[in-house]
Amino acid sequence: MTRFGRATSVERTAEGRYRVELDEGFGFGAAINGGYLMAALLRAAVDASSHLHPVATAVNFLRPGQAGPAEILIESRKDGKTAAMSRATLLQNDKAVLDALVTTATLDPEATPSYRGEAPAMPPIEECQKSGVGDEVRGFPSMVDMRFDPAAMGWLDGNPTGRPEMRAYFRLREKDIPDPYVLALALDALIPVVSNTGVYGWSPTVELTWHLRALPAPGWLTVHGSGRLVSDGWFDENVEIWDAAGNLVAQSRQLARAARPKA
Amino acid sequence: MTRFGRATSVERTAEGRYRVELDEGFGFGAAINGGYLMAALLRAAVDASSHLHPVATAVNFLRPGQAGPAEILIESRKDGKTAAMSRATLLQNDKAVLDALVTTATLDPEATPSYRGEAPAMPPIEECQKSGVGDEVRGFPSMVDMRFDPAAMGWLDGNPTGRPEMRAYFRLREKDIPDPYVLALALDALIPVVSNTGVYGWSPTVELTWHLRALPAPGWLTVHGSGRLVSDGWFDENVEIWDAAGNLVAQSRQLARAARPKA
Repeated sequence: MTRFGRATSVERTAEGRYRVELDEGFGFGAAINGGYLMAALLRAAVDASSHLHPVATAVNFLRPGQAGPAEILIESRKDGKTAAMSRATLLQNDKAVLDALVTTATLDPEATPSYRGEAPAMPPIEECQKSGVGDEVRGFPSMVDMRFDPAAMGWLDGNPTGRPEMRAYFRLREKDIPDPYVLALALDALIPVVSNTGVYGWSPTVELTWHLRALPAPGWLTVHGSGRLVSDGWFDENVEIWDAAGNLVAQSRQLARAARPKA
Repeated sequence: MTRFGRATSVERTAEGRYRVELDEGFGFGAAINGGYLMAALLRAAVDASSHLHPVATAVNFLRPGQAGPAEILIESRKDGKTAAMSRATLLQNDKAVLDALVTTATLDPEATPSYRGEAPAMPPIEECQKSGVGDEVRGFPSMVDMRFDPAAMGWLDGNPTGRPEMRAYFRLREKDIPDPYVLALALDALIPVVSNTGVYGWSPTVELTWHLRALPAPGWLTVHGSGRLVSDGWFDENVEIWDAAGNLVAQSRQLARAARPKA
């Protein structure tokens, strides 16, 4: 089993009640990555469901998660033939860290789209930058391999594009085959898109909803982030993930707080 | 008070507990419009909050709502200075109809965006079609005035554009000034975008999340719907609402079930 697999493993302690040990490897300093928290919560939601895949997940981020033990509660709200719905909460020290609504269904791995939009453009991986912050040996950057589109990385040298955007290839460093839980991690892994509008710093996610649209093929994922509005201290970050076979596999939008622009 | 105002009025019966009378005027046959149900639920969530505006709302649609009395339960989960979060449920006959996560905050009506994407193109209102199904005197179409972009209405004559898309001007027929609750109604008011991919019929929403980005100016709203993938019986419908002053005021995405394409 991979480290990410172990780090998102949940142990059922009673009906609708799970235990997970949050791995500091998926943290930035003291705070744990939100996508990783979602992945652990979704393992429990799927375990408790009669369906196999988390097709819709909406999350309120109440407070930061920290390395160490956490509890996940799953409350079934509907168990249908096409889809099942639950309310889920991840707690630490009896305080809610995430509140979620989860819809599970069973996707057909052989499904062929009757309509598919165009994939956004992306340069070849050889032309991409390994990361904006150097290859770190600890924490989140040590777990994931990301290659950023250089066209959206000028903000590092004080030349942001002026549009909220960020794009990268993504895989776990341990080269696991991507699954819905890896997608949950990848959706919240980009440098905030507002870096390209001159807004730098901590941008906490308030709400994030994502939809699993297909099961990802093996290989690199491509993560396309963009935004539509930065106003009143809030911004949206929209992410599409395309897999190595050219399929749209996940869509998300998050509402987040913008740090104050530097003068 | 307008009929929409009355139809979404909630009466507080205890802490975190509200009563609402669902108005058949916002139904299609026996089923009540999902956007209207969201609007009523949000009135209760905002009443129970120390903040004024519902900035993020995620909803699981568990079963159809019907005209008549309903109960709304609001459970506060965090009451912060910037934002408050709650879990909300709308019930009828003690069965959950909607489960929701709601984040409230207080938006600044004078906020000026530091970045705003371009508004999608829309023809002048004089060139738009009053509705796809004629002016009905009862139910939802009698409550709202919608003018559809004819470029996306060829599906009525068997000439769908081939892309999931639908666009319309929107206002209440009683010409109320739009507010966040009218936006909730407008977000789920379009003819399903998949009509333009040859998929006709009942397309039940499974999950819908929307973000309120600014308070709408008086006048017509412009509702832009599009989709990215139709596959495996599921489709996404993305909606942006722009107000008469040219501001992006709301963004949503829903995951819905697609009817079988006609042979």
